Amino acid sequence: MNKPEQMNTVSVSLAAALDRFRTIVGAEWVYTHRDDVSLYDDAFTPFAGEQKETHAAASVAPASTEEVQQVVLAANEHRIPLYPISTGRNLAYGGSAPVLSGSVILDLKRMDRILKVSEDNAFALVEPGVTYFDLYRHIRERGLKLWIDCPDTGWGSFIGNALDHGAGMTQLPFKDHFSARCGMEVVLGDGRLVRTGMGALPDSKLWQQSRYAAGPLVEGIFSQSNFGVVTKMGFWLMPEPEAVLSARVIAPKHDDVVPLVKILARLIYSGEINCYTNVRSPVFSQANDDEGMALWRQDDGGRAEQWDAYAEKLDSHFWQIPLRFYGAPDVIRAQWANVSRQFKEIAGVTTEPAEMLQFPLSDSQISELSHLSYYGIPSLAVFTGIAMDKDFKGHLDASVVVPMDGNEILKASRVFRRLYDDAGLPQVMGFAEHYHTRTMIMFQGLYLNHDPEHNANVRRTYSRIVRTAAEHGWGIYRTHIGFMDEVMETYSFNDHALRGLHESMKDALDPRGILSAGRYGIWPKHIRGRRTP
Amino acid sequence: MNKPEQMNTVSVSLAAALDRFRTIVGAEWVYTHRDDVSLYDDAFTPFAGEQKETHAAASVAPASTEEVQQVVLAANEHRIPLYPISTGRNLAYGGSAPVLSGSVILDLKRMDRILKVSEDNAFALVEPGVTYFDLYRHIRERGLKLWIDCPDTGWGSFIGNALDHGAGMTQLPFKDHFSARCGMEVVLGDGRLVRTGMGALPDSKLWQQSRYAAGPLVEGIFSQSNFGVVTKMGFWLMPEPEAVLSARVIAPKHDDVVPLVKILARLIYSGEINCYTNVRSPVFSQANDDEGMALWRQDDGGRAEQWDAYAEKLDSHFWQIPLRFYGAPDVIRAQWANVSRQFKEIAGVTTEPAEMLQFPLSDSQISELSHLSYYGIPSLAVFTGIAMDKDFKGHLDASVVVPMDGNEILKASRVFRRLYDDAGLPQVMGFAEHYHTRTMIMFQGLYLNHDPEHNANVRRTYSRIVRTAAEHGWGIYRTHIGFMDEVMETYSFNDHALRGLHESMKDALDPRGILSAGRYGIWPKHIRGRRTP
Repeated sequence: MNKPEQMNTVSVSLAAALDRFRTIVGAEWVYTHRDDVSLYDDAFTPFAGEQKETHAAASVAPASTEEVQQVVLAANEHRIPLYPISTGRNLAYGGSAPVLSGSVILDLKRMDRILKVSEDNAFALVEPGVTYFDLYRHIRERGLKLWIDCPDTGWGSFIGNALDHGAGMTQLPFKDHFSARCGMEVVLGDGRLVRTGMGALPDSKLWQQSRYAAGPLVEGIFSQSNFGVVTKMGFWLMPEPEAVLSARVIAPKHDDVVPLVKILARLIYSGEINCYTNVRSPVFSQANDDEGMALWRQDDGGRAEQWDAYAEKLDSHFWQIPLRFYGAPDVIRAQWANVSRQFKEIAGVTTEPAEMLQFPLSDSQISELSHLSYYGIPSLAVFTGIAMDKDFKGHLDASVVVPMDGNEILKASRVFRRLYDDAGLPQVMGFAEHYHTRTMIMFQGLYLNHDPEHNANVRRTYSRIVRTAAEHGWGIYRTHIGFMDEVMETYSFNDHALRGLHESMKDALDPRGILSAGRYGIWPKHIRGRRTP
Repeated sequence: MNKPEQMNTVSVSLAAALDRFRTIVGAEWVYTHRDDVSLYDDAFTPFAGEQKETHAAASVAPASTEEVQQVVLAANEHRIPLYPISTGRNLAYGGSAPVLSGSVILDLKRMDRILKVSEDNAFALVEPGVTYFDLYRHIRERGLKLWIDCPDTGWGSFIGNALDHGAGMTQLPFKDHFSARCGMEVVLGDGRLVRTGMGALPDSKLWQQSRYAAGPLVEGIFSQSNFGVVTKMGFWLMPEPEAVLSARVIAPKHDDVVPLVKILARLIYSGEINCYTNVRSPVFSQANDDEGMALWRQDDGGRAEQWDAYAEKLDSHFWQIPLRFYGAPDVIRAQWANVSRQFKEIAGVTTEPAEMLQFPLSDSQISELSHLSYYGIPSLAVFTGIAMDKDFKGHLDASVVVPMDGNEILKASRVFRRLYDDAGLPQVMGFAEHYHTRTMIMFQGLYLNHDPEHNANVRRTYSRIVRTAAEHGWGIYRTHIGFMDEVMETYSFNDHALRGLHESMKDALDPRGILSAGRYGIWPKHIRGRRTP
């Protein structure tokens, strides 16, 4: 076993391993030149130009599961740390850069085959390099009556995004990407090749349809971890709906958020609402002037009647919730009538006239849509929305999970706004979004630039958000490679028993500690001391 | 480490361990007398009166997580095999009997506290001894607007049933019991106490609401396995619907099942149908006379036109699908209209008039219901339906998973009917049921009696069903303790790599092999040779 310090440098064993990799994948698919390898750096790093930015030592791009297995076996033999990426587009969370400098990127982009799509049974089996654009085009070219679900940016990997518990914008269960998975093929850290669930039954007809085979369910352990390299994964797709009805609920007053979210939650739990939605306050997001900031800075963060008076001056309603219903026109009209009736039991609540779109859409109809991801259409439109000024060097998102409870949303709004204010930073986001099934996510966005001092302040603020969230009983569901130990530190019940469980599994499935050292706070035994704090 | 043969007898170390258990839980909660311990025998054993029936050596009933942890630690010290059960009602799958004779039952029935029920956020946190009856009564006594989901028999444990991937009869996701879970507390085989997900965040407000914390998802590994003892578990509950509409789709012809199931599948995948349902043929289930059996016995299992002629003589439609819609009256009427319109695109398909029930029901209304579990009301009514003749000694169910595909349902109907016929046994069940999300289960039921020869035939037939299912690419999702090795043997991809993964996890989390030796084919390292074949 190499000593820890040797893992971090281009050593004799790395050179020998790279030779082996060249034999396995072909010399042209092993990158060692600085210009090539630096492409794997985190484009949105919060450590721009600083010592703490992590860098890969090299990269290797296999074309098949067999090649992945051979690379992992060779890495085991030579004790070389590998860092698998799918398409490497996990921006704001580290992109394609490793947690541990000196890792060799296991770049799976060449594995971009769509292995199976079933229209009747509405699923796809794909490799890690398959992007949202790829599968969308495949489906549209063939006129299949299926939708994908995609996040804001369409260039990402189905597998990579799902493994990091990413989400999109159509409806449940599809928009919760890991919960829409069914079936995996995995190369374990020690090189064993496993298929999960019904995939373990030779010639099974059920790999992408049955979550249950017999025995334990193991797929979850390969998400946000470093126990294996997922080389194939199935996804449940959404049958194309006949129509989509879009509508919006409007509530006038500050305190309306409490009954509003109570009703929203019940309708989500019962399945009567299952679209992506959010609870947003145009008042809070505009309250950056002196009067608004004075309210935030009060000990109580502004009383309801003060905020209502402020809203009146802005001539704005206080809350809005966009909703969509997917299905047959008569059904979704009835669903919206029922839902709006329930929201209107709150005094003063109004709704905006609903709009109906019928599917499939023509290309020209698609080009006129404003929110493509609501309809499972991938794009890169979100990048035009981000302030791309010369100084922009990316962003960090603290992905805070809060309960479906208006009082908690109010509390989080105040707590985090105050925290940004203390740090002298603008709050980029801060409303509540419904991505996963029974929670709201309040992303706390932070812009990075080329000024190390500013970025250091952003990092301190990020850390404060993590600790503050934990103090309130909220948690972070996903984080940047630079903060993984810190986030996992908050999950500390019983002296970090859960981390201990992760480490036991790591030692069992990747005993030489080859894969993604440090990912989500899981360090291989021989360098476990690298964990911070 | 004890030698294998020592694990199976009441040894000096067992006596010492029982003393320790008495100190931990109190002498009155350790059972060693034969009359008490025999109560843990499998009431439905397929080995009645035979050598191969398994028996516990003793039992211990802790009252708290702390006591469970101490018992597990003591068992580790003394190398005593434990077999945890919740309420022990897993009938047809082994009941409360251990896989390995000589195990000490870790009986969790005293841990029957309902720790938390949230009406607004529609969840419960319970201990393993909490039954469907318990939580139902708790909710009804308080008039909470919540439903539970329960299987046919209400005396089972929420936790035990979910861990064995059991299912009920309301709607998704609730009816798929493991998929309705959220949050666990587990004592690992080595005695470590872990809380999963947001439960690892001290004072989290999200343990029963967020599936995602940060890091890998580990809950799945504690189902159908033996890595830990689940001492607490959260469940998502269904908000009480305003109404339920019940209806039935009827198709006249043999071949109608193909378009019928295609439409049913699409509606299930899109979420437009989400109730428990089944695809049943009253013709197939009546075809036990000479003419019917002659059709089954044809090489092709009877051609469509022959079956249609046979159905005409019976004066019966060929297929029926019961459906229910839960929600607001106007919405569920529109849903049913849309669904029936789609089914009626198949020539000859008809629907029966829909019935509407409004909730909550009075006690007297409940007493008149025929299918209580459709409405989340636990009962033991199913036992009155089983032929309880003097000779009845239980039943085995081969739980075969088949795709949502009419051709596969037809094939399975023929293949298994033929198999029963060859064995000279009556086929007890054999229609397709929708329990989990995207599959059908075709339970193959077998009645046991007191005749060892009959029971040996039943066991041979069960084994043939398992092998035959696997040969067709179908799989078994749940099995009796006497067949666990055999079922897991079918999940053999890449020289049983998945079993190897299970074993690696077993060795990591329960290194002394204390818990539930042999459960779902996972044997501790020191007696791994016991696996059959």
